[in-house]
Amino acid sequence: FGKILDVFKKRDIRYFYYIGGNDSANTCKIVNDMAVKNGYDLKAFHIPKTVDNDLLVTDHCPGYGTAAKFEACALMGDELDNRALPGVKIDVIMGRHAGFLTAASVLGKQREDDGPHLVYVPERGVSMDKFLGDVEDVYKKLSRCVVAVSEGICDEDGVTWAEKLAEQKETDSHGNIQLSGTGSLADFLAGQVKSRLGVKRVRADTFGYLQRSFAGLQSSVDAREARWCGRQAVQYAMEEISGSVAIKRVGGGKDYAVELFRTELSSVAEKTKSMPAEYINAEGNGITDAFIEYAMPLTGGLPKTQYLGNEPRV
Amino acid sequence: FGKILDVFKKRDIRYFYYIGGNDSANTCKIVNDMAVKNGYDLKAFHIPKTVDNDLLVTDHCPGYGTAAKFEACALMGDELDNRALPGVKIDVIMGRHAGFLTAASVLGKQREDDGPHLVYVPERGVSMDKFLGDVEDVYKKLSRCVVAVSEGICDEDGVTWAEKLAEQKETDSHGNIQLSGTGSLADFLAGQVKSRLGVKRVRADTFGYLQRSFAGLQSSVDAREARWCGRQAVQYAMEEISGSVAIKRVGGGKDYAVELFRTELSSVAEKTKSMPAEYINAEGNGITDAFIEYAMPLTGGLPKTQYLGNEPRV
Repeated sequence: FGKILDVFKKRDIRYFYYIGGNDSANTCKIVNDMAVKNGYDLKAFHIPKTVDNDLLVTDHCPGYGTAAKFEACALMGDELDNRALPGVKIDVIMGRHAGFLTAASVLGKQREDDGPHLVYVPERGVSMDKFLGDVEDVYKKLSRCVVAVSEGICDEDGVTWAEKLAEQKETDSHGNIQLSGTGSLADFLAGQVKSRLGVKRVRADTFGYLQRSFAGLQSSVDAREARWCGRQAVQYAMEEISGSVAIKRVGGGKDYAVELFRTELSSVAEKTKSMPAEYINAEGNGITDAFIEYAMPLTGGLPKTQYLGNEPRV
Repeated sequence: FGKILDVFKKRDIRYFYYIGGNDSANTCKIVNDMAVKNGYDLKAFHIPKTVDNDLLVTDHCPGYGTAAKFEACALMGDELDNRALPGVKIDVIMGRHAGFLTAASVLGKQREDDGPHLVYVPERGVSMDKFLGDVEDVYKKLSRCVVAVSEGICDEDGVTWAEKLAEQKETDSHGNIQLSGTGSLADFLAGQVKSRLGVKRVRADTFGYLQRSFAGLQSSVDAREARWCGRQAVQYAMEEISGSVAIKRVGGGKDYAVELFRTELSSVAEKTKSMPAEYINAEGNGITDAFIEYAMPLTGGLPKTQYLGNEPRV
């Protein structure tokens, strides 16, 4: 960080804008603190951008709306695929500590029996038995089941399943489970559903980096707000020493609107926000309407899919 | 199949349209043959649709253009991600026997040094040593490397790497490699690059079902042609006993245009098309301009990405 300030001094740089999440806000804060300490006149602003949507103070983070749209579209397709080829489909979605992206998997649901039928976020612990029981219940009812699971899913004691898998490896000299791999959690869950519930067709995907960088789709609302946040940071820097740009929602639903405001770097640096309890259902296996109201406007609208299968059979 | 014909008879169904790939064409053919044998007056038409793009006779298959657009967009994002966080990124793409989808990963390349830098399709065998040597060469030059690998990648002897991995498991009682899992090939390749080339940051994704069902993006050309093929099948059924709809390209580049024609069910049923040799470079690790000319019109256009990183450094 000292080197950053040295370069700033050498090049006479007086404005520092840093785009990113809570770590980036922290970098911005450290550089700013150094400048203050050294009596160097610098304006340092953090511009929020993270698909995790886990910054404090702000209503939501630029980047999240587009990633949320990706999750919704992915599950809309998966849902139709699962109707055509029934079985259990498990999707492992990004988010180690916050469930916002996993929750977004429900945004494209149109019919009562649309998937994802079960959604698990890191904020609510769930035992393997409960998980399997949930899947079995849905499968008995619909003869199929689509599940969205956060990569940070944890047991009731708060330990992530990924960590438990890693422990299991230590004790199992045959090491049938590979742990560090990209698909290990998905494979493990698919294996459990197959062996313990006896479901024949089980598939699992790990969405990986596609979720945060896919070039093929953008939320118009997200793109507009992201640009606005950047512009606003420049305006703030004309008047203030330092800070982070935050979003306040001033209208919901069709009247969705936001205002921007400045917050201290210290209020977002390193801190993280979790999914509010009201966004998770009582059972801990689904997402509430409160979340849908919160997240839907951020996607800038979703495509429509069509399905003829509910027509009366001839 | 006999049951299908029984239902047709019972319901007096005289037109049978079946949408899908070469297996679906074969189903259509079997049902048609039965109808002929039984003297039942039926018109049976296959309507092509497969992301694999591996049907004979037709220039390309409905469904492929949209999936090709997905691959291109996925790699466009991955490319920017890899520039920001350098290392080796490996993407495992659908296609066990045909490399059309994996080849489509190059369609979004805009600059000379854009990824994917290496592309491997099932039509050309490659040894692990050659693969690692290729990755090392790119990594030495660019300090990063994006690789697109078909899930059907095979060794020089024609045996797929996935099969070789499976054999390896048999002989390795410690079973450090999990084979049947969704991410096993990707994990294996990442492990090889890490351990044998000593690259620290190696990431691997397996695109999975997203590629064939993502609801967030569609090729306008593909959507138009898919609908046209369906409509044309109905028209053919007014005149002919049976058949499959095929596409003929009558103009390339900006003058891209197609005509539809009828082909026999037997000419597409069960048969598969591979990537023509002229679409693969001499080294067997890249895709030629001839493929880009072939595939680009099918995507209906790609989004633009921007990157400021090539500006002169201050």
